[in-house]
Amino acid sequence: MMNVESSLLLTDLYQLTMLQGYFERGLTGIAAFEFFVRKLHPNRGFLIMAGLEQVLDFLEQSKFTSEELDWLRSTGRFTKDFIDWLADWHFEGEVQAMREGTICFPNEPLLRVVASLPQAQLIETRLINLLHFQTLIASKAARSVLMAPGKLLVDFGLRRAHGAEAGLLAARATYLAGFSGTSTVLANKRFGIPLYGTMAHSFVQAHDTEIEAFRVFAHAQPDNVVLLVDTYDTEAAAHQVVALGHELSKEGIAVKGIRLDSGDLAGLAKRVRSILDEGGLNSTTIFASGDLDEYRLLELLAQGAPIDGFGIGTRLDTSADAPYLDCAYKLQEYDERPRRKRSTGKVTWPGRKQVWRQYDDEGRLADDILSLAKDSQNGEPLLVTVMSGGSRLESRLSLEEVRQYALYNLGRLPARLASLTEGYVYPVAIAPALHELAATMDAQE
Amino acid sequence: MMNVESSLLLTDLYQLTMLQGYFERGLTGIAAFEFFVRKLHPNRGFLIMAGLEQVLDFLEQSKFTSEELDWLRSTGRFTKDFIDWLADWHFEGEVQAMREGTICFPNEPLLRVVASLPQAQLIETRLINLLHFQTLIASKAARSVLMAPGKLLVDFGLRRAHGAEAGLLAARATYLAGFSGTSTVLANKRFGIPLYGTMAHSFVQAHDTEIEAFRVFAHAQPDNVVLLVDTYDTEAAAHQVVALGHELSKEGIAVKGIRLDSGDLAGLAKRVRSILDEGGLNSTTIFASGDLDEYRLLELLAQGAPIDGFGIGTRLDTSADAPYLDCAYKLQEYDERPRRKRSTGKVTWPGRKQVWRQYDDEGRLADDILSLAKDSQNGEPLLVTVMSGGSRLESRLSLEEVRQYALYNLGRLPARLASLTEGYVYPVAIAPALHELAATMDAQE
Repeated sequence: MMNVESSLLLTDLYQLTMLQGYFERGLTGIAAFEFFVRKLHPNRGFLIMAGLEQVLDFLEQSKFTSEELDWLRSTGRFTKDFIDWLADWHFEGEVQAMREGTICFPNEPLLRVVASLPQAQLIETRLINLLHFQTLIASKAARSVLMAPGKLLVDFGLRRAHGAEAGLLAARATYLAGFSGTSTVLANKRFGIPLYGTMAHSFVQAHDTEIEAFRVFAHAQPDNVVLLVDTYDTEAAAHQVVALGHELSKEGIAVKGIRLDSGDLAGLAKRVRSILDEGGLNSTTIFASGDLDEYRLLELLAQGAPIDGFGIGTRLDTSADAPYLDCAYKLQEYDERPRRKRSTGKVTWPGRKQVWRQYDDEGRLADDILSLAKDSQNGEPLLVTVMSGGSRLESRLSLEEVRQYALYNLGRLPARLASLTEGYVYPVAIAPALHELAATMDAQE
Repeated sequence: MMNVESSLLLTDLYQLTMLQGYFERGLTGIAAFEFFVRKLHPNRGFLIMAGLEQVLDFLEQSKFTSEELDWLRSTGRFTKDFIDWLADWHFEGEVQAMREGTICFPNEPLLRVVASLPQAQLIETRLINLLHFQTLIASKAARSVLMAPGKLLVDFGLRRAHGAEAGLLAARATYLAGFSGTSTVLANKRFGIPLYGTMAHSFVQAHDTEIEAFRVFAHAQPDNVVLLVDTYDTEAAAHQVVALGHELSKEGIAVKGIRLDSGDLAGLAKRVRSILDEGGLNSTTIFASGDLDEYRLLELLAQGAPIDGFGIGTRLDTSADAPYLDCAYKLQEYDERPRRKRSTGKVTWPGRKQVWRQYDDEGRLADDILSLAKDSQNGEPLLVTVMSGGSRLESRLSLEEVRQYALYNLGRLPARLASLTEGYVYPVAIAPALHELAATMDAQE
């Protein structure tokens, strides 16, 4: 099987047909494309930039393989000269971007590619595909992180994520946004993300009795005894956990936790907590899963549910209440001249831009200014150069550093953005120079 | 980069920890697991089974690589004997399934795995991940196919699909459900799916004038001249297309179509159609894209929009109005004894099951009966054996055959399921034998 993730053929047909047009006409001037989000879903007040690392991997590594070039030849769609030119294709451009973990808002460029037009064009589809997904999921995950401070939050979404890469990268994006870890084994191997796991209902069902299943599991995983108690009758199972707990303690094995996966989680957690406490298992934690998201977390914690950790899956990894971002990667400058698209509802701000962020006296985000990159404003400039000549710059951050930066930024959100209440729009001002440029360009037509 | 799609480490941690428990206790009896959907989102009346081909590929090919085994050893989570046993792991079980393209409903098994417990367990996560996504997307795509008979329907969703594999497999799932093709190049290489593509706004913007961009494109792609007319002013662009059309016709090049991507698509399509017709370009087609889905298609066609084809992207490839299925893969039998999960809201029907479908006098789907596989009923049995001893049986269908089968089945839907109207629940009867088994099992507890 070939590698889907790194293939340059994982692109839209029009990228290749346009490229042949650029190639034939020698349209190889320097282009600046910017990736931005046009507007947010009503359920989102902010986004967290994520996915840059994979975009830079893609830009550094992508080439056409000889097998892919042979296949392109065989389609008859392209000229020989063009395919020979593709054989030498590698990305040599420059990238400016917000660091992963940065809070961002509509109209702000999260990333800019500056490269020859064919280079900046060919990478469009996969670049959007990578930045869109991780930014989408990190932004969703941050909402649970904000709702449940101090709780263990684990990504459980691989099975209903949209395919292999979505499952793997959802683990990364949720961890980046402050989750504690994931159940996805490959995410630990690939990214070093902490792993969490318990047992499935099938494990309980495969044994003749529930307590026998618990006993077998405890002996097989003595350091991580987390028992699933809802296969048949949750309270009865909790009593069995207490009995087993005393049995196991003689062998030096502790029941670390129990997991609830169905029913009235708040009510069950309270009753199970009592059963465990009365049985002396005061340090056995309660972990909950099953159709969770940030709204349910808020509800459960408001009900005083004594739950220590949450496994959040499907609604997280699909960003179910807002499963896509209205994002774009648009040409803003070509051959030193700014460009502006004016399609109805899709007008763009022209030129190479920068975002300057200002903070209030308490260090919280106060407002942003969007202007031309050369038109310096007060505040912290958010885009920095991360790639030059097709190579990463040295300033690369580890995933742990990015996660710390995201958590630091979540701590600096204004209160109205840190809640699930809708309707607050964070102020992003358009600087006069940018307004003027747009007006001048409109007048020229 | 390693291959994400085929790694057995693309799984939940608990699969491996449970497996170690099964291994240590010799729990290697024969298990039957079934994949089914618990209930449908209110926006869906039926599903189309898709993804079987990739599940069977996964079962046939998956093994642990020596590098993965070394890594598992290095984690310290597992015993040496268990990892040595994993080194020999390959799937040797049996699979019964509905054919891809089959219409299906809640509670019906789409697929059953019969294998030793550790084999049937380890594959759970990826099996769900593959079947869930393609069934989700094929079911979404079928709705557009039903709304727009005779129209060209093209998957444009790669850029906002959730990652690489989602983009690639969405092309497959939408084609399977009756779409005409995709813009995803790799889907043509991998699956032979027809490719469609036009040009991007950046292509227009990179040229000094719009007509110059159109001219360059036409010469670079003389067999596929589809021009994007909404970058600046759509009607003005349509007049330029007419002028260019006459110029190009002298060179033997025809303007095959124009694409609208923003604004009031119905109104613009009518005005552009008039401009093209008055200019003599009667056979130039109109293709529309931009925030489309089956609801918009219905609306546009009801307005009499003269649109010949649609590019449908984001909302299709993310199944935006219902971005996941409430599906499960559950143990229904172990060691020749049926098993039943009774968690609140998640009760399952025990045993190995079959679905029998009955048709009315006009050949339309009338009702289904769910029973035990050995309890034969009237009607067409939908699950057939597709894998035995870990190897595919000969009866494999091509993607074209599957697509024809799906289209045939869509043509047999009762009228209430073939519309976007919500609320109709297709009858799936539970046979007496299955009721009796469940009651007997409940009584035994």
